[in-house]
Amino acid sequence: MRHQTESDGTGLAPASGTGLFPNPGNRAAFLELLGDIVDDYYTWHESCAGAAGPRLADSADLGAAGPRIADSADLGAARTLVRGLSEWLARESTPWPSPLYLAHMTADTPVAVSLAYLCALLYNPNNVTGETSPVTTRLEHEVGDDLCRLVGFPPAKGWAHLSSGGHAANYEAIWIARNLRGLPLAAAADPASRDLVADLPRPGLVNLPVSGILDLVDDLAGRGALARVRGLAREIHRRAPGKLLFARGAHYSWDKCADLLGFAPGDVEAVDLDRHHRIDLGALRRRVRELLERGEPIAAVVATLGSGGEGGVDDLHEIMRLRDWCEQRYDASFYVHVDAAFGAYHRTVCLDEDGSMLPYDEVAARAFPARLKPEVYEAFRCLPLADSVTVDPHKSGHVPYPAGGLALRDGRAAAVVAGRSAYFAPGDGARPAFGSYTLEGARPGAAVAAVWAAHRLIGLHVGGYGRLLGGCLATAQRLHERFRAIEGDSRLVSGYEPDLNILNLAAGRTEPDLVDRLLARLRAEAAAAPLTSLWVSANTLAGRRVLRLCVMKELAPAAVDRVCEALTLP
Amino acid sequence: MRHQTESDGTGLAPASGTGLFPNPGNRAAFLELLGDIVDDYYTWHESCAGAAGPRLADSADLGAAGPRIADSADLGAARTLVRGLSEWLARESTPWPSPLYLAHMTADTPVAVSLAYLCALLYNPNNVTGETSPVTTRLEHEVGDDLCRLVGFPPAKGWAHLSSGGHAANYEAIWIARNLRGLPLAAAADPASRDLVADLPRPGLVNLPVSGILDLVDDLAGRGALARVRGLAREIHRRAPGKLLFARGAHYSWDKCADLLGFAPGDVEAVDLDRHHRIDLGALRRRVRELLERGEPIAAVVATLGSGGEGGVDDLHEIMRLRDWCEQRYDASFYVHVDAAFGAYHRTVCLDEDGSMLPYDEVAARAFPARLKPEVYEAFRCLPLADSVTVDPHKSGHVPYPAGGLALRDGRAAAVVAGRSAYFAPGDGARPAFGSYTLEGARPGAAVAAVWAAHRLIGLHVGGYGRLLGGCLATAQRLHERFRAIEGDSRLVSGYEPDLNILNLAAGRTEPDLVDRLLARLRAEAAAAPLTSLWVSANTLAGRRVLRLCVMKELAPAAVDRVCEALTLP
Repeated sequence: MRHQTESDGTGLAPASGTGLFPNPGNRAAFLELLGDIVDDYYTWHESCAGAAGPRLADSADLGAAGPRIADSADLGAARTLVRGLSEWLARESTPWPSPLYLAHMTADTPVAVSLAYLCALLYNPNNVTGETSPVTTRLEHEVGDDLCRLVGFPPAKGWAHLSSGGHAANYEAIWIARNLRGLPLAAAADPASRDLVADLPRPGLVNLPVSGILDLVDDLAGRGALARVRGLAREIHRRAPGKLLFARGAHYSWDKCADLLGFAPGDVEAVDLDRHHRIDLGALRRRVRELLERGEPIAAVVATLGSGGEGGVDDLHEIMRLRDWCEQRYDASFYVHVDAAFGAYHRTVCLDEDGSMLPYDEVAARAFPARLKPEVYEAFRCLPLADSVTVDPHKSGHVPYPAGGLALRDGRAAAVVAGRSAYFAPGDGARPAFGSYTLEGARPGAAVAAVWAAHRLIGLHVGGYGRLLGGCLATAQRLHERFRAIEGDSRLVSGYEPDLNILNLAAGRTEPDLVDRLLARLRAEAAAAPLTSLWVSANTLAGRRVLRLCVMKELAPAAVDRVCEALTLP
Repeated sequence: MRHQTESDGTGLAPASGTGLFPNPGNRAAFLELLGDIVDDYYTWHESCAGAAGPRLADSADLGAAGPRIADSADLGAARTLVRGLSEWLARESTPWPSPLYLAHMTADTPVAVSLAYLCALLYNPNNVTGETSPVTTRLEHEVGDDLCRLVGFPPAKGWAHLSSGGHAANYEAIWIARNLRGLPLAAAADPASRDLVADLPRPGLVNLPVSGILDLVDDLAGRGALARVRGLAREIHRRAPGKLLFARGAHYSWDKCADLLGFAPGDVEAVDLDRHHRIDLGALRRRVRELLERGEPIAAVVATLGSGGEGGVDDLHEIMRLRDWCEQRYDASFYVHVDAAFGAYHRTVCLDEDGSMLPYDEVAARAFPARLKPEVYEAFRCLPLADSVTVDPHKSGHVPYPAGGLALRDGRAAAVVAGRSAYFAPGDGARPAFGSYTLEGARPGAAVAAVWAAHRLIGLHVGGYGRLLGGCLATAQRLHERFRAIEGDSRLVSGYEPDLNILNLAAGRTEPDLVDRLLARLRAEAAAAPLTSLWVSANTLAGRRVLRLCVMKELAPAAVDRVCEALTLP
């Protein structure tokens, strides 16, 4: 097994095509495989329960009162309950696989991914430490390396892990950023560590470049002073946690994040959006320069690759250029976190089978029946320059919930949030237990197995995920073309060419209440006939209510026609 | 289905006994049920994908380059991958079902619970909102009511939800507590809200009783002033978030929690433990009185029901008495959060079938072949007086990861951390979307289905979970008896009678390195022969290394003998 998972070196394998998803042709194979899985599990269970000789108690042994225990070979009440649940789910679940389901960010689940999840779930591994997840902790090291490669961080230096979702990953990133920010000042305040930062002027300490802080982390750890200085830093960032800059239209989790981590409203700077629904670079530049010139700490600048509402891709290359300029100009810098929960997997449309960036001209030729905007390509190209990236396999990665993820460009950063349990062994040396470095404690190894299977089978490159997501992008662009405001009589308008596969449709000038009427009709139709109706969501764009189409599948031309038809009022 | 789930009113059903867990007798039924589940799923999938008429694209439609798509009826590469994973897991997984596995807090998974999880997973519901989880959001309302009843909160007033684990639940509880604490002062600072607190002297605002703050939340919300005043409160709690008091031996997540939420080390008060490994009441009383007398805000007092290392149950009844006394004496109070991640389900040993507390004398007679300490019973009895309780179904609830949970005595408290996404519908009115009120966003509905199935089949009362956990408690007590320090020649000593089912064994005076030698031997044995060796964990108790036995199953006398044998050095 070990051999097999490492056999292709990069962990990138070719896509296996539409046999990927459930269809009548693979139903028998699915069941057969499930039978094998259950056989393995029951055999394992019986070995565990029986091999030790003495069995678990039955109630007679300890003389317990209470109901007598009866073994029910047909599972009795369990059968009734589970069959009822199964029928209920099959009757009322949200129809993700439908070509007409374009409402939220859930993709269909490949057969192998479901099977890997089901399989690992039976053994209930907990990835807090390898002690409780011998197999899936090893898989998480592989998955972590995959995620590093996906965003462009060299795995030897970077570090990544899964989380319950994008919220937790974003919280953790800003927790790290905030804790890093206070560290140089804290070192200067610590008599036994002061010498490490003695050659830096105080203004330089406030917004020290991240690489400098990470070297300081190393130095402090080497002296056994890190815990003490981290404590001092907490006092500092309580007084001044630094400014948190993100786009006004960024994910709704950012307000929660700022509140949770103790940023007051005055610490939060919501930068305006430009007309492409990206962070306004002019406004960001002005604000960053003001803060650096005043010597006010910046905890982090958050860029978004694939905003939740609009799929907007911030101009990360320009943000990185701004950072370079600031380092040159002021000897001061800022932490860049990228929320690519939705958009990170889309980077595969630009990745060759060996994980390197394809030249721009080749992207369309290799992967993509549609146009990738040059500035979106540039943002993807510069992703490896970020300090941390949120990437959710349960969004564009086609993996079931819960599977968020966080990748750090430099794994040393995790040291500023590390903790440790007294009753878990400290890990196997080279690879410490995940639980010591993650916001969460217990984490499901089964989700890790699912991500691992998805990466292995689909492949993190242009011929794998790039193929799947390229098809979604192409479909979104086709829909955009159909709703472009060319003629005055167009009633529903796609006002911007989407950066990724989310489209917002606004009412034309003549009928301002069109969106609400359409939404009401579509919701009523979907409630009455879920499988044959169009599912969309709502969004608010520049204060106006719009229809939001999140295109998580590639649609054939006839299906595009059908979507457009459903979006016409009689 | 709806009818069925509500049929027993309380949601409490009788336990179904050892047929609960996998055994050779129910293997065929398990597979048959799984076949039904897969049939339902494939039928649903085909309906979704096909009913709309136009199909998803195959690559030819959009003229994509890249690899040709081939349908593989035998699942090809998926088969190899999944079979390899299955065999690997069956070979190397941690043997939870073994009678000799006593290391960590993972219980065996009942058959029906695995099936419910597997079943719901296929439909990939996301409980962020009912839009993405029509079935499992309804189940979560039921499960939330269950958890309220389990800890004694009337469900009509309380509110509970699942989380990724105890960490997230604890973070969320303290986030709520911290945000509540600053609210009265913030209202006083808001010209348009000042009148609401005008009759309270300023010292009274600092540590206003929680019920008073919740009424203020209502008043502020009624005026549309809550968001503004919450913003002011964030400025206040950044300057002074209040003190966070918890026991020095409390779960390792508390240090993370304090750091994450912006409490500086000076805001955190780790109260000493007493000789029972519970929070020292004398020290707590002194410190609380000092703080209240000085008018310093207390963000929260955290009690633990079932500490991770020792299973200690804090004297919650005394903490509640202290709070009453403070309210009488000072007109000031504090928020009480209980971390019962491990211990909340143990309360079922005291719960009658209708959910009411059994009289103490009846507990032993009804549930329990061993002694429940009177003070532990008192702590369980007073749990309904806490403001919030962390309760993890994936610990003592026998549910797979990830399934933590948080219960609030008064659901209004969630309003101080509420946020909202622009693109999810606001819920169905009476029952708002979970995602607006939880620390996390996307959450797996499959985990909810598993908890729901466990509660329905096992029952949250003395004859259900009480039976399972009573057996664990009895086993821990038997083991304690075997290692009590009676004679001078005892080399491994259980120094305290456990409150719950975790035991710590220390070396006697004669051989201080005994624990490390034993640990090394046991770990080597477990690595070589996992199914026939004893698994324990390590802990540090009063600075000494000890063996930690976490007894998540009921053992027959022969198995107890076998454990004792394995703990003897030759």
